[in-house]
Amino acid sequence: MIEDIAVSYFENFKVKHPVDPILIEGLPGIGQVGKLVAEYMIHELNAEKIGEINSIYFSPQVILDENGTARLPRNDLYFYESGDRHILFLVGDFQSTSNEGHYILADQYVEIAAELHVKRIYTLGGFGVGHLVDLPRVIGAVNRPELREEIETAGVTFERDQQGSGIVGAAGLMLGFAAARGIDAICLMGETSGYLVDPMSATNVLAVLTQLVGVTVDPTQLNAKASEMEKAIEGLVEGERLQREEELTYIG
Amino acid sequence: MIEDIAVSYFENFKVKHPVDPILIEGLPGIGQVGKLVAEYMIHELNAEKIGEINSIYFSPQVILDENGTARLPRNDLYFYESGDRHILFLVGDFQSTSNEGHYILADQYVEIAAELHVKRIYTLGGFGVGHLVDLPRVIGAVNRPELREEIETAGVTFERDQQGSGIVGAAGLMLGFAAARGIDAICLMGETSGYLVDPMSATNVLAVLTQLVGVTVDPTQLNAKASEMEKAIEGLVEGERLQREEELTYIG
Amino acid sequence: MIEDIAVSYFENFKVKHPVDPILIEGLPGIGQVGKLVAEYMIHELNAEKIGEINSIYFSPQVILDENGTARLPRNDLYFYESGDRHILFLVGDFQSTSNEGHYILADQYVEIAAELHVKRIYTLGGFGVGHLVDLPRVIGAVNRPELREEIETAGVTFERDQQGSGIVGAAGLMLGFAAARGIDAICLMGETSGYLVDPMSATNVLAVLTQLVGVTVDPTQLNAKASEMEKAIEGLVEGERLQREEELTYIG
Amino acid sequence: MIEDIAVSYFENFKVKHPVDPILIEGLPGIGQVGKLVAEYMIHELNAEKIGEINSIYFSPQVILDENGTARLPRNDLYFYESGDRHILFLVGDFQSTSNEGHYILADQYVEIAAELHVKRIYTLGGFGVGHLVDLPRVIGAVNRPELREEIETAGVTFERDQQGSGIVGAAGLMLGFAAARGIDAICLMGETSGYLVDPMSATNVLAVLTQLVGVTVDPTQLNAKASEMEKAIEGLVEGERLQREEELTYIG
Repeated sequence: MIEDIAVSYFENFKVKHPVDPILIEGLPGIGQVGKLVAEYMIHELNAEKIGEINSIYFSPQVILDENGTARLPRNDLYFYESGDRHILFLVGDFQSTSNEGHYILADQYVEIAAELHVKRIYTLGGFGVGHLVDLPRVIGAVNRPELREEIETAGVTFERDQQGSGIVGAAGLMLGFAAARGIDAICLMGETSGYLVDPMSATNVLAVLTQLVGVTVDPTQLNAKASEMEKAIEGLVEGERLQREEELTYIG
Repeated sequence: MIEDIAVSYFENFKVKHPVDPILIEGLPGIGQVGKLVAEYMIHELNAEKIGEINSIYFSPQVILDENGTARLPRNDLYFYESGDRHILFLVGDFQSTSNEGHYILADQYVEIAAELHVKRIYTLGGFGVGHLVDLPRVIGAVNRPELREEIETAGVTFERDQQGSGIVGAAGLMLGFAAARGIDAICLMGETSGYLVDPMSATNVLAVLTQLVGVTVDPTQLNAKASEMEKAIEGLVEGERLQREEELTYIG
Repeated sequence: MIEDIAVSYFENFKVKHPVDPILIEGLPGIGQVGKLVAEYMIHELNAEKIGEINSIYFSPQVILDENGTARLPRNDLYFYESGDRHILFLVGDFQSTSNEGHYILADQYVEIAAELHVKRIYTLGGFGVGHLVDLPRVIGAVNRPELREEIETAGVTFERDQQGSGIVGAAGLMLGFAAARGIDAICLMGETSGYLVDPMSATNVLAVLTQLVGVTVDPTQLNAKASEMEKAIEGLVEGERLQREEELTYIG
Repeated sequence: MIEDIAVSYFENFKVKHPVDPILIEGLPGIGQVGKLVAEYMIHELNAEKIGEINSIYFSPQVILDENGTARLPRNDLYFYESGDRHILFLVGDFQSTSNEGHYILADQYVEIAAELHVKRIYTLGGFGVGHLVDLPRVIGAVNRPELREEIETAGVTFERDQQGSGIVGAAGLMLGFAAARGIDAICLMGETSGYLVDPMSATNVLAVLTQLVGVTVDPTQLNAKASEMEKAIEGLVEGERLQREEELTYIG
């Protein structure tokens, strides 16, 4: 009988000894901002994969790689170690497809964090505003008021335009479950339209996060992706402007 | 492993001894009428928070306060004591997101009531009529026919325009589960359009409820909110009237 | 903790000894045909209520009677006895709101039938055809080919216009679960538009069913209801005809 | 109490001894391609039914045969044996109606395969492209990169137009669960519009599959069905062309 959630650690993890690690969560979500940041850090830091999570709450499909090899949807755990800086990453293909599954998975993620003695969690996401944003800010949320000052000093704002809105899914719920277990947790959300994968927003989140965590990550490739995207969007916007002018001329 | 529903009482509740308390439920619902009334009473009576309920059936998100501090969605239990008048309140962020969850939560709420020897339950809600109501009535339902007369004497009507309609969610199901446990339960519903948060409807429910329960609650602030809302709606309606006149002039 | 399904028998049932009873199921469904027939028989035969079924799979609301007294949604079991003719009835407020719940409830219904040594089950329903039907037929389905001849002799047709369509919900699934337990089961479906409660269709199902079961039920009141409905529909159709003529006159 | 999934083997299977069998899955899906191929093979090879699977995750209805006899929805297991060529088939009425059910059923299917010492699984399906396809290709996916070459040699392509898309349901998930149990698994998908039952696409999948499995299946009847379908579609397309011409003439 299949388990609702199955967590498995790799052999290589047995010789690792994370000391006071932080955990960075970057699962899929608005604008894929969190996913872009966390996967980019894993790649640039050459973090090592240490475990996998399977669940019946993920979308019921297999993922195909470029060679047509299929695998079950997963969330992955990575570990990066440099001196006394220990970082765990939680990334993956999906979040839950059901409401109850969101709770059960987020609780499991934080249970993993507790087992690995994580001292702080950063959850990453996009903050959808419904329109293109020229200078996307990084918006923060914390699970303990005392954490706010440190985060603001790193350039994060706590001014949300939409009062009282919540944070849906793992990036939000992990803050709540972490509080219940006495683990500090911070959510960093890059402003984004919500319509497109948004590397521009991700670059800002990356800058803030690496500063807060105290690691150096070369942002060149993410910046390049963001520039490409920016040009593509400018092209689209310009195209639309021209078309509208034409229409006006035609009408006029 | 996370529990489907977790109920926890605060330390302060250990020294409380509710005697024949009544329970007032005001969870979110149509026009937020029940929520407005119960939370207003808690505030005005300075009731003390004594416990919390978490559940995987709530919406899968965290709630942010004005400072960006996140917390899990909750239902809250409050206690108010004045002489031999003991009142418990059940309020909170959400009801269930699933059908089955509605049953499981409502059963749990009534189990709490039974454990605390509640002798009567008042559930509060809005009664959506689909149009603005000038003089919103308070409509009642009971879980034992003998309760009706007392409620009618307090100005509650049992005349519903829509025959045979039910009461969805906790405000309704708690009546059913309370009957099965021998607890009297009364639902008070303020007529409301169903489109807007409705403090006008709430003021009427508050008046009836405080009379029935025998506590004095100064309605000034709720009335003020209702007046503001009323003016805002009058403005909208007048604006629409003027626009229609203009259109008629234009056509004519 | 609430049970997913709870079956309870009344005290009065302890002195009843159903011998080879048949079970007639008439839960809500297309055109409310099955519900109309079964509840009419219960009323006319003065059958006695012997038990109740509650479930978290029903719609999460309470049902209000004409006096504003609320009760949990239920399915009800009735018993009728006349000489050696023993009949059980299964009626109620709702079927399941979820797919899985349909299976779990239908299995429970047939388990009840097995416990009470039911020798044959009749499930009742409407057969939606999407348009008004002048002379609605009664369409049959069986859970054992040998049952067909007897049913056809009673005037039931097995000619469906839509090939291969199934029967959704309890009226269908009970046939399947009954077969697995060696209980004969027959579904009788009255043709109906599917848009309206249909007492006309119900009168035909009643006629066939009472003949098959061998009880006499005075159809006067159901016929009267059907006549009323027929006139109401004729009025609607005539009104529409007149309006169309008017439009044609106007255009012409 | 009903089981979520119930697997039962027939008596006749006790004397069968499948040796290194392959399992061919052809459950309903896009264009019914997999179902058409697997059921056609079962028919042509005269494979023997050896077991049945029932589940609360199937659609909650009974299936009626042409005589009005109802049965519960099922998945069926068939066995074909010719010399040392042993083949199991998994076909049926439905896949899961819920996301979680897809996982639980696919895991069960592969558990059956493991119990019967299946050495290779072929899952069949349609690959929806959203438009009519003149020469539908067979697109492959594997659960181990080493399997690809053999499949390509049989004429299967791994070139998908839509990058990164997954395979939803049993045909996909079984590849993932099989990998976890060390069983080789290959998915063969016939290109199809996705709008119609597609025997044309099925003939191509059949040709590739029989070659890979090493059995001879006379494709005459499936080809005939495909030709009929092709003519019917040509008729539709031609009819639409004529209509458009007419409209142009009319406008012109």
